[in-house]
Amino acid sequence: MAQPHRISMLGTGLIGDFYTMTLQGRRGLDRVEVAYSRSEERGAAFAGRWDIPHWTTSLKEAVEHPATDTVVVGLPNDMHEEAITLAAAAGKAVLCTKPLARTAEEARRILRAVEDAGVFAGYLEDLCYTPKTLKALESVRAGAVGDVLWVRSRETHPGPHSAWFWDAAKAGGGAIVDLGCHCVEIIRSFAGKQNRPVEVMCWKDTLVHPIEAEDNAIALIKFESGAVGQFEVSWTFRGGMDLRDEVAGTEGTIWLNHFLRTGFEMFTAGGNEGYVAEKAESSRGWLFPVGDEVSELGYVDMFADMFDALDAGRQPAETFYDGYVVNAIMDACYRSAESRQWEPIELEWRGGQTAPIDRDRREFDGLTVIKDEVLPDGRRKLILKDETSGRFEDRIV
Amino acid sequence: MAQPHRISMLGTGLIGDFYTMTLQGRRGLDRVEVAYSRSEERGAAFAGRWDIPHWTTSLKEAVEHPATDTVVVGLPNDMHEEAITLAAAAGKAVLCTKPLARTAEEARRILRAVEDAGVFAGYLEDLCYTPKTLKALESVRAGAVGDVLWVRSRETHPGPHSAWFWDAAKAGGGAIVDLGCHCVEIIRSFAGKQNRPVEVMCWKDTLVHPIEAEDNAIALIKFESGAVGQFEVSWTFRGGMDLRDEVAGTEGTIWLNHFLRTGFEMFTAGGNEGYVAEKAESSRGWLFPVGDEVSELGYVDMFADMFDALDAGRQPAETFYDGYVVNAIMDACYRSAESRQWEPIELEWRGGQTAPIDRDRREFDGLTVIKDEVLPDGRRKLILKDETSGRFEDRIV
Amino acid sequence: MAQPHRISMLGTGLIGDFYTMTLQGRRGLDRVEVAYSRSEERGAAFAGRWDIPHWTTSLKEAVEHPATDTVVVGLPNDMHEEAITLAAAAGKAVLCTKPLARTAEEARRILRAVEDAGVFAGYLEDLCYTPKTLKALESVRAGAVGDVLWVRSRETHPGPHSAWFWDAAKAGGGAIVDLGCHCVEIIRSFAGKQNRPVEVMCWKDTLVHPIEAEDNAIALIKFESGAVGQFEVSWTFRGGMDLRDEVAGTEGTIWLNHFLRTGFEMFTAGGNEGYVAEKAESSRGWLFPVGDEVSELGYVDMFADMFDALDAGRQPAETFYDGYVVNAIMDACYRSAESRQWEPIELEWRGGQTAPIDRDRREFDGLTVIKDEVLPDGRRKLILKDETSGRFEDRIV
Amino acid sequence: MAQPHRISMLGTGLIGDFYTMTLQGRRGLDRVEVAYSRSEERGAAFAGRWDIPHWTTSLKEAVEHPATDTVVVGLPNDMHEEAITLAAAAGKAVLCTKPLARTAEEARRILRAVEDAGVFAGYLEDLCYTPKTLKALESVRAGAVGDVLWVRSRETHPGPHSAWFWDAAKAGGGAIVDLGCHCVEIIRSFAGKQNRPVEVMCWKDTLVHPIEAEDNAIALIKFESGAVGQFEVSWTFRGGMDLRDEVAGTEGTIWLNHFLRTGFEMFTAGGNEGYVAEKAESSRGWLFPVGDEVSELGYVDMFADMFDALDAGRQPAETFYDGYVVNAIMDACYRSAESRQWEPIELEWRGGQTAPIDRDRREFDGLTVIKDEVLPDGRRKLILKDETSGRFEDRIV
Repeated sequence: MAQPHRISMLGTGLIGDFYTMTLQGRRGLDRVEVAYSRSEERGAAFAGRWDIPHWTTSLKEAVEHPATDTVVVGLPNDMHEEAITLAAAAGKAVLCTKPLARTAEEARRILRAVEDAGVFAGYLEDLCYTPKTLKALESVRAGAVGDVLWVRSRETHPGPHSAWFWDAAKAGGGAIVDLGCHCVEIIRSFAGKQNRPVEVMCWKDTLVHPIEAEDNAIALIKFESGAVGQFEVSWTFRGGMDLRDEVAGTEGTIWLNHFLRTGFEMFTAGGNEGYVAEKAESSRGWLFPVGDEVSELGYVDMFADMFDALDAGRQPAETFYDGYVVNAIMDACYRSAESRQWEPIELEWRGGQTAPIDRDRREFDGLTVIKDEVLPDGRRKLILKDETSGRFEDRIV
Repeated sequence: MAQPHRISMLGTGLIGDFYTMTLQGRRGLDRVEVAYSRSEERGAAFAGRWDIPHWTTSLKEAVEHPATDTVVVGLPNDMHEEAITLAAAAGKAVLCTKPLARTAEEARRILRAVEDAGVFAGYLEDLCYTPKTLKALESVRAGAVGDVLWVRSRETHPGPHSAWFWDAAKAGGGAIVDLGCHCVEIIRSFAGKQNRPVEVMCWKDTLVHPIEAEDNAIALIKFESGAVGQFEVSWTFRGGMDLRDEVAGTEGTIWLNHFLRTGFEMFTAGGNEGYVAEKAESSRGWLFPVGDEVSELGYVDMFADMFDALDAGRQPAETFYDGYVVNAIMDACYRSAESRQWEPIELEWRGGQTAPIDRDRREFDGLTVIKDEVLPDGRRKLILKDETSGRFEDRIV
Repeated sequence: MAQPHRISMLGTGLIGDFYTMTLQGRRGLDRVEVAYSRSEERGAAFAGRWDIPHWTTSLKEAVEHPATDTVVVGLPNDMHEEAITLAAAAGKAVLCTKPLARTAEEARRILRAVEDAGVFAGYLEDLCYTPKTLKALESVRAGAVGDVLWVRSRETHPGPHSAWFWDAAKAGGGAIVDLGCHCVEIIRSFAGKQNRPVEVMCWKDTLVHPIEAEDNAIALIKFESGAVGQFEVSWTFRGGMDLRDEVAGTEGTIWLNHFLRTGFEMFTAGGNEGYVAEKAESSRGWLFPVGDEVSELGYVDMFADMFDALDAGRQPAETFYDGYVVNAIMDACYRSAESRQWEPIELEWRGGQTAPIDRDRREFDGLTVIKDEVLPDGRRKLILKDETSGRFEDRIV
Repeated sequence: MAQPHRISMLGTGLIGDFYTMTLQGRRGLDRVEVAYSRSEERGAAFAGRWDIPHWTTSLKEAVEHPATDTVVVGLPNDMHEEAITLAAAAGKAVLCTKPLARTAEEARRILRAVEDAGVFAGYLEDLCYTPKTLKALESVRAGAVGDVLWVRSRETHPGPHSAWFWDAAKAGGGAIVDLGCHCVEIIRSFAGKQNRPVEVMCWKDTLVHPIEAEDNAIALIKFESGAVGQFEVSWTFRGGMDLRDEVAGTEGTIWLNHFLRTGFEMFTAGGNEGYVAEKAESSRGWLFPVGDEVSELGYVDMFADMFDALDAGRQPAETFYDGYVVNAIMDACYRSAESRQWEPIELEWRGGQTAPIDRDRREFDGLTVIKDEVLPDGRRKLILKDETSGRFEDRIV
């Protein structure tokens, strides 16, 4: 039976709004009781906007407030460790936004803090919880695509809305840290959490913005099974927010689109003076809004899993350990971008072993069957290889 | 502040499952306490499936059970009046699935029963609450498409899953009553609830199934403003469930797709042995599942509005009066299909008056401007009409 | 073996450009040798643009010019009869743009003129020749969708580019005559050319533009087989040119999109100063250009069929008789819009007879099988009807 | 003025069929007069199928046949050099299918052969000629997307239809050589032919098929301007043929889909016993045929450009030099897959120099403007950086 939870919300920016909208949006059991903001003005406005009884500019006070049992961290990356350490010390459940940390080293300290304190900890990786992703993962686990061979995850938009994201010291990097963390965990979810990420090849560059951090990056991630993940992230994309995932398996294919082409298309000649969708660039012409963003972006299912897990005494689908793995992979990305070669992923692995993708060899007439297809006229055609001579031949059978 | 509600769920078929999944699915305040089924076996299974404390085969007992304050009617159409009359007598809030009744006359009696008893009554028209529809309605109200000229609503699938739907006596008709009721209310929502539906032209036929009721129908609905609604319903569609709405206005266009093309595409070579989506016809080849069906079909937002309205002492967005209007329009559809001409919609109108769509006349050089466009080479071209001579001309300006 | 043809092109507007671009665009055998324009200036410009040796403002001279064997009519509707009569008298092959005439009466005179003269005559209904339509028709004829039940054809855009279209006297009507003629013939092609169109129900209105002719219309066309066609035409659509066809059959479904969503999507922040696609409304934001318009709109395959038919001494797929049938259906549309009821289609029918759509009745255990489906858990469920008692029941088998 | 050409078609497999269908398909000037096949049986069938007067199993005879002025090479990769050398010696124009050769070294010898002989030579890279690509390239050149930053080209399907493709010795490799050659040239076309490809990072693996050659590969290509190309090729994709290109620029975005989602969607319950589209995997369920494959795949525009160039004495858009560059890039891919690091592209560069992508720096109040956006409430927000202190700030102005 679900138990109501009372929450200290740390951070009152865009993510704090999305989280609170989700938690308080629709007849839910759980409520935000305390808000923390670095700024008096934003704190007061946030508390007013969401009807939150208490707010403060003291991080410690917010975390330790007696009215709450759970701390949600929606702060800039450089403040995660401090906030989580306080929450662990206060013995409260703690849910932290992505990325968990700026580096794997920092993430490992955070992980140790909550594990030592024995508190419940959940990694708020919303995009692994989108309704489409959840159903697609179910299909993949049920064998609908066979063995997973390749996963592409793409997140690109014109750049984040707050100053600290652009400051590599506070954020820990650029588009990789901001967007790649989502992609890495989506890729891991489809490739299998038990499938060890082994090495990484990454390109990054600063192509457009006048910053030090990367505004574009692409990476390949190799898994123990032989599967390959591929992410593309950008802060220079034009046209809105592009959130797409693709999975190729031995028996099937999955294409997910979370934002720009999801069945809502609107042309408007006048400006309709208002919010269209996250990162939309225009309010005229053809627009592609999203129905219910907090649901489509996974926030609803994410918090449900977190609090259900807390009530049930089980781990959520996304744990701080997952957050740590993501940081370890991103660290390898930065090393690879520097060294210009594949780099091993260094991490304390807890996920067991995975067998290589199966390559069945089928025979026909003593020869290896390379391909078996039905021709338009109904005849069956085999492409065969003689392993002794190395010769290939077409044969109609 | 939201108050928790306890519900008597009447009916344990597909719709009862969808409703209960929605109400109890995700950390909600409200719960089903009592279930009613006509069958012992289905009642017990349903209560077990959803962890519902009480169940019964007595309609009266279920309605009057002291543990509940709200009655949800998910029964065959011919049982709505009886159930709602009992709920009204018990002084409980009552929410009724679509259609409200089999005819406008029956709907009017139902409406009077709840109004006389003074109980809260909500019409469970889920498709007016899909997240896309809610956002699109907001855009339309904000003027994004200008004056609405035309609304198309289409719902087609291979036919319903329970026997009573096919029995015209119990259902009150065929595809019009089953699916057209959704379309009519979607059309009214976009055309404006205050925009009086004036007359109807309808074609219906039984093209495929061995039944008396119609398995296909198309209707046009004319509104006081001059706007036209168009619905297409079918129980013979192949390929899944097709749920699309289109709106054309003087300043813009909206296209909504709720099911088959919403950003989730899967190819699977093997059968993945399981549920793909409501009314999906296959479990191989290219499939188009929907992420979270109860959310995409509007159930989540619908119940939130219902209980929020109840708590706030306001009317929900979909009332029993709306249900009555829908029945009045469907009655006119059946009359028109019979008479083979436009038929007036007979109803007790409470919605006020709507002005006709505005046709501005603009002049240039004393002539009426018919069209004003920019040519590919940048020149501006006018099409002009001389109202005296009736002559039309092209003019580059 | 294909024979080269030399063409007199009558008309130098948008359609003349499209036709000539098609004929001379890509290493073709056939060429325009003579152009006729009502205006000196446009004639000269056109001849220059397309490298055409002769041009004139005399219709007679253009038709009778000794260098050509074929006359292509791309003139305003009120000039078709005169031009075709001249071509027939000159003994030349004649190809006429859509619609053939302004009324069935005029079309019948035109038809008689070419039949009496014994000249080859082709009806230039390009949209029945789009590559997608051709392939879809092949699939329908091969049985891929079973019996055709319903065909929707939609053509809407913000209105035509030349003054004469808006002048009901010259054009013969508004959006029905301009766009409905395409839809009617697409519907006939899918429903079957041998399937007699029996009656029509039509709504039309002038909702936006300051003209007498209709700028919006919807019609239903009933065929002898029981199949229903539905067209939607508009000169007030916002967002480009919407060209979509949908076919529903007993065994399948076809959806064709010819313009706005065909796999070419472009976002541009700046104006790219140029032609995007026919009737595109903007050159910024999300745009949906079409690759090769003359190919996608069917012009290429249409002229190929016309000249191949001429060479082979056979009829083209679209004949003047087809044009006449289209006019007869449109005449009935106008009558129905006036009388506000179904109107019979009056025409000299040459197409034979078509059997009604087959409604097979299957039995199980002496009962009629209404539906037969596999449940998610793998069990098979029948919905059965007892024809004696009229009772329906669900049965798991 | 276009001159008719007479062609020796070398090769009678799938590609020979596609080429001949294109050349003879629609009232074209040019014709195949001679066919060469390695097999008597296939040669005779081919000549019969396409009504070709002469056919032979002698390569030399086919090339030197006096009836032809142009040789089209549609042979396995290991026969290109021999065929082209013969054609050059015969002084005939020669058009060669992709890839030009198996290695850059072989390509360079081929290039030298035609250049030394002074014959016209065209590289038959059809996918750079699809109507969508041609129009998209025009838009890119007109500045619609600003500076090109990133190009993705993806070609994946379940594997080729003839034995020799699978034989690395004959083909020169696997999916990279078969499919990557298309992608590389598409990428170059969008990035700019004058934009030198500098280095390559490539992953390849044999994940599914029992062969030595790669069945999957991904590569990044870095250009002198800083732009990055990305290709994904696979012979293990399930669901048909996936042909998509994406371009991101500083001012815009382009998404092209050439096959599976191009506006033709069909559901069929029965098998329709026939050809659906190249590499389609099924003839039931949801299918996505392509209207006119030879047009959509670029064959029509490709041959038009080739023969028009020949007539005009100019170079075609795709030359043997382009084919050589493609081979050089693919060679670097194989080296990189081996060395597991970025590898330089070794080639004789004829394309000139390209400036780096421009990174404008804009100032506000002495600070660097990082982002400039309009908030939903209409206020303007700047993200600014103080270059002295390194601090970032949000400012509402």
